[in-house]
Amino acid sequence: MIVVMKAGASQEQIDAVVEAIRKKGLRTHLSAGEERTIVGVIGGIDFEKEDLINHLEAMPCVERAVPVSHPYKFASREWRREKTVVNVAGVLVGGPNLVVMAGPCTVESREQILETAHAVKAAGATILRGGAFKPRTSPYQFQGLGKEALELLAEARDQTGMPVITEVLDTQDVPLVEEYADILQIGTRNMANFALLKRVGRSRRPVMIKRGMASTVDEWLQAAEYVLAEGNANVLLCERGIRTFEPSTRNTFDVNGMIVALSRSHLPVVADPSQGTGRRSMVAPLSMAAVAAGADALIVEVHPDPVHASTDGAQSVNISEFQEMMVEIGRVAAAVRRPIATAESAG
Amino acid sequence: MIVVMKAGASQEQIDAVVEAIRKKGLRTHLSAGEERTIVGVIGGIDFEKEDLINHLEAMPCVERAVPVSHPYKFASREWRREKTVVNVAGVLVGGPNLVVMAGPCTVESREQILETAHAVKAAGATILRGGAFKPRTSPYQFQGLGKEALELLAEARDQTGMPVITEVLDTQDVPLVEEYADILQIGTRNMANFALLKRVGRSRRPVMIKRGMASTVDEWLQAAEYVLAEGNANVLLCERGIRTFEPSTRNTFDVNGMIVALSRSHLPVVADPSQGTGRRSMVAPLSMAAVAAGADALIVEVHPDPVHASTDGAQSVNISEFQEMMVEIGRVAAAVRRPIATAESAG
Amino acid sequence: MIVVMKAGASQEQIDAVVEAIRKKGLRTHLSAGEERTIVGVIGGIDFEKEDLINHLEAMPCVERAVPVSHPYKFASREWRREKTVVNVAGVLVGGPNLVVMAGPCTVESREQILETAHAVKAAGATILRGGAFKPRTSPYQFQGLGKEALELLAEARDQTGMPVITEVLDTQDVPLVEEYADILQIGTRNMANFALLKRVGRSRRPVMIKRGMASTVDEWLQAAEYVLAEGNANVLLCERGIRTFEPSTRNTFDVNGMIVALSRSHLPVVADPSQGTGRRSMVAPLSMAAVAAGADALIVEVHPDPVHASTDGAQSVNISEFQEMMVEIGRVAAAVRRPIATAESAG
Amino acid sequence: MIVVMKAGASQEQIDAVVEAIRKKGLRTHLSAGEERTIVGVIGGIDFEKEDLINHLEAMPCVERAVPVSHPYKFASREWRREKTVVNVAGVLVGGPNLVVMAGPCTVESREQILETAHAVKAAGATILRGGAFKPRTSPYQFQGLGKEALELLAEARDQTGMPVITEVLDTQDVPLVEEYADILQIGTRNMANFALLKRVGRSRRPVMIKRGMASTVDEWLQAAEYVLAEGNANVLLCERGIRTFEPSTRNTFDVNGMIVALSRSHLPVVADPSQGTGRRSMVAPLSMAAVAAGADALIVEVHPDPVHASTDGAQSVNISEFQEMMVEIGRVAAAVRRPIATAESAG
Repeated sequence: MIVVMKAGASQEQIDAVVEAIRKKGLRTHLSAGEERTIVGVIGGIDFEKEDLINHLEAMPCVERAVPVSHPYKFASREWRREKTVVNVAGVLVGGPNLVVMAGPCTVESREQILETAHAVKAAGATILRGGAFKPRTSPYQFQGLGKEALELLAEARDQTGMPVITEVLDTQDVPLVEEYADILQIGTRNMANFALLKRVGRSRRPVMIKRGMASTVDEWLQAAEYVLAEGNANVLLCERGIRTFEPSTRNTFDVNGMIVALSRSHLPVVADPSQGTGRRSMVAPLSMAAVAAGADALIVEVHPDPVHASTDGAQSVNISEFQEMMVEIGRVAAAVRRPIATAESAG
Repeated sequence: MIVVMKAGASQEQIDAVVEAIRKKGLRTHLSAGEERTIVGVIGGIDFEKEDLINHLEAMPCVERAVPVSHPYKFASREWRREKTVVNVAGVLVGGPNLVVMAGPCTVESREQILETAHAVKAAGATILRGGAFKPRTSPYQFQGLGKEALELLAEARDQTGMPVITEVLDTQDVPLVEEYADILQIGTRNMANFALLKRVGRSRRPVMIKRGMASTVDEWLQAAEYVLAEGNANVLLCERGIRTFEPSTRNTFDVNGMIVALSRSHLPVVADPSQGTGRRSMVAPLSMAAVAAGADALIVEVHPDPVHASTDGAQSVNISEFQEMMVEIGRVAAAVRRPIATAESAG
Repeated sequence: MIVVMKAGASQEQIDAVVEAIRKKGLRTHLSAGEERTIVGVIGGIDFEKEDLINHLEAMPCVERAVPVSHPYKFASREWRREKTVVNVAGVLVGGPNLVVMAGPCTVESREQILETAHAVKAAGATILRGGAFKPRTSPYQFQGLGKEALELLAEARDQTGMPVITEVLDTQDVPLVEEYADILQIGTRNMANFALLKRVGRSRRPVMIKRGMASTVDEWLQAAEYVLAEGNANVLLCERGIRTFEPSTRNTFDVNGMIVALSRSHLPVVADPSQGTGRRSMVAPLSMAAVAAGADALIVEVHPDPVHASTDGAQSVNISEFQEMMVEIGRVAAAVRRPIATAESAG
Repeated sequence: MIVVMKAGASQEQIDAVVEAIRKKGLRTHLSAGEERTIVGVIGGIDFEKEDLINHLEAMPCVERAVPVSHPYKFASREWRREKTVVNVAGVLVGGPNLVVMAGPCTVESREQILETAHAVKAAGATILRGGAFKPRTSPYQFQGLGKEALELLAEARDQTGMPVITEVLDTQDVPLVEEYADILQIGTRNMANFALLKRVGRSRRPVMIKRGMASTVDEWLQAAEYVLAEGNANVLLCERGIRTFEPSTRNTFDVNGMIVALSRSHLPVVADPSQGTGRRSMVAPLSMAAVAAGADALIVEVHPDPVHASTDGAQSVNISEFQEMMVEIGRVAAAVRRPIATAESAG
């Protein structure tokens, strides 16, 4: 960490800064420039110095305190050089193969989820997605079938052998959801719900954390750090688009941010082209882009009849569209030497 | 609501749209332009049509479905023309006087909270703020004193007569927090934590909802709608800055958004100049701006010794700074005919 | 176009709106809902109605005027269904092959530009880029070699046969630049410099328009419309990243926006992975993503010695890195059936 | 300036960095931390080191180069402590009084500009605004009356004694516009049109630079630096709203950014509440907010008949609205001890 003093800071003020740092058991190194003095902090690691930074920045003589490393430990490449591979009931995410998760935005009926599950499996998906508890912007929108949906997902898993991912919205629901789900999903709106992150950090299930729609890559990795710090090492990151000024798509899929996450962290990164664009016709090209840029997995909204979907029909592809895009994705995946995982390669 | 068909939509496709709308008990009105056909939807109110909009937008022949009214009911000026006045243990927020809430970001000790409470009261504040449960970006930061802080806040209230506002982070903590607090604060990171919004909607305490850092004004009012729809009519909105590309301040205080909220909703709007800028030297000018633009209240972080604050020292003013700014704010408040509330005017 | 009246608009006010529309020679169609009245405008095309929209939105009884088509004509897919292929001295951009433009950010010396030109040609590029006039945020930065650079670019073209693209900053420089360049580049900072757009619209050279860093896709296409409306049909669009809250990359490459531009317009779209990320290590993965998503061309900053580049060294790849990434890009290009153009396929 | 080396940089690499810095005649100071080495740069001033920063950041062993001062000289408070007062034909902007500039968005006719000029003068404005050359997003929109408008503005000045501000769009138009105008306005779209900035830097007229809609405060001050560095010391800054995700207003007026500009620079800052919101009903509250936060001047769009304005009618106030808001603004201006300038106080 570096502390930049204000121009014109007095010797007394510099001494006070040095004293504050030494009290934390750290050493300092002064560099008196013509314009201003810089105080280098030696020892310790920056992610444990948040409170010291806060303290220093509150001192009127300090211009700013600049961390020189990232604000997380267990999520970083420095902590773990080799890529993490998360084993989801036999399906390896982060390994040599691209994993495709697919299924409806929301579980609506037994028929709907079973039909979709069989169809996406046949087309090459190896993990089934489906919403049971839905976060909705308006209280007047359909909020999901809850426990009934979890039971239907379990039935679909039994029939197809595909593990299941579903979202959990509240700390109180974690015991119920982890009973049924193979991956607990933290949605974009809850990425900074720290109570929930801590709770799933104590779960035995892998956790997938969607990036907050206005979160920086470093904040996203700090959310992962909350889960990792509680002892749950099986964390997936999911890029799903950020909020910008551009109105033509619901979100702006941040392919740059995804590449940065892949370089700063050892955790697998999943791309969500459905949320990432909000438009069905863009799901295929964006999926190919994400795979070409290095995504470890995709999560795609598929509905047998998008027009009658209870949620997100505009961004769901139907089954024949999904089949077609899997062929195209397969070609790009092969070109980047990351063939799509199959039930066999998974096992 | 208006449904804009794609150019070249067939008569059969238009009929399907009309049929889908009629099934919901609504009538339609067609307008066949040279470029494309527009279907007007007659009857019902738009905020209850979210699922219909979803359905229509999933139809391949539909360009988009445009609501023509705001997506909330109880939060709107159409529902309630006169301004809501929230009575917080005798202090009226939204009434003829400007209310100032002040106190430390975080409750750190008995001495700190009591000293601050007496000082801000003497300077003219009528509601005491103080954090017990703190949402922190990093798991390695101080997370607040919890229940102990709530007890200290209650003691400060007993000594000063000022009602107390504090944040609640998790549904499971609501019963504890509402036992001590006079206003439940929902933080910016939890503005779309719908489980929490529903839970505080069933509380007997007023609720203050901070705007999500990447939430539109309409999404903010939909968050209020979650609370109002559960039966809790005592909702305050709080503008605290949004996230933009500008790096010179932590957040961009959205004075425009605040003015829009004041015009679209009858709910009182509180301005947070401390979070809104992240810089102590900007708290006073921004407070004056917010008051001049029509804010009903301010919430200001004050610490007897910001350099030793455990959180947010860089944006906390000290007690003499707070006294000075209250004089300046008082002048602007008088100029807009909204004098600062006093313990007497409150009572 | 649709005009949404305010709730409670009087019959007199509605009549005034209808009258204003009819004065423009257009017909109307009323739809009186329970909440409010909608006035449909029949006839004409929306991109010619900007001034009418302005007029209507200024009427106090009007909530808003909603165009139902895009605000441009010649740039739209409706105007021209088949893809435009721009012939740049024999190299076809927008045709069956992916075109790669490469070269240094800035022309620095005869040796530098000639070495780079020969090297990028050998690696598979078919158009040479190089800056002569440089837009720099600070007046104290190197501003380019100007005419001398143009002469060096011409010499490199003579030696290699590669056509040349370079930026023009000012209307007064257009005659000089078009004498030397095969494509005139409009930079991101000048995307809304309408005087310059009109001037290059009267040039005989193809024009490449970089997207403004805070411009919507529709504003970008309106910039193209300025050039097309002056009679220059050879326009290339270039996505180079937009400005967002994310600090880890200089810009956020908007792969979504690129896909939208490809669908709304017949003009070829070029991706700039160097500006798009600002980081050398991200140029290759982002190039592959852009190609997988459908880009017609890439424009890549290559420098024989990035550390000693006078500008943008941090985002320039060196020659061996460029050679390697061309191999990887070639694989993805083949997977999406868009093989890289060669000097032979170009001819 | 501080250079942060990558973790694991070798001694050889550190030596190369030190050598590169010394070649520029600067000294260095090393601080070897446990994690990484920091190289402090001593001597010189940061705004002249842009090219060195570029060079260092291109070295693979360098994590980043962090300037510790602002990237401009003449625009900074360090260069000039006391506030600059720009004398516009006798009206002092930046002095003890608040200056109000007002007039139509666009000059449309002799009658319109003369009527408006007399009316805004009577209501307390002391500078007349009016557009002659208009930057329009679409080529099909009205582009202004050009020279005819300049002559009408001059006539209005002769009749009222008010100096005139108008926009210049192109370097070639500067000689014409400076013949008629008292202040040359650089619009938001041209804030980074460096050719134009240099040209007006050689004008004898004061220049007002609107902030780019996606420009940081520091980039805005660098635009001012372009003008100042050419020798024109009479520069006004104008905050007019930035582009964010929020759709309810056309722009987000950045009151924070305005306060930052006032603290970092000695140049006067003008607030544009008309562009800043895009909505007539918000012009008055936003004007009051800007004045309360410390704006030196306001620039307001006023039209005798906004419904028939050729441009920006939706954000123009009419004359009686302007009269009313001047009374309200006057009260806030008095509260912050910055009474509105009058023709007498100006003289």
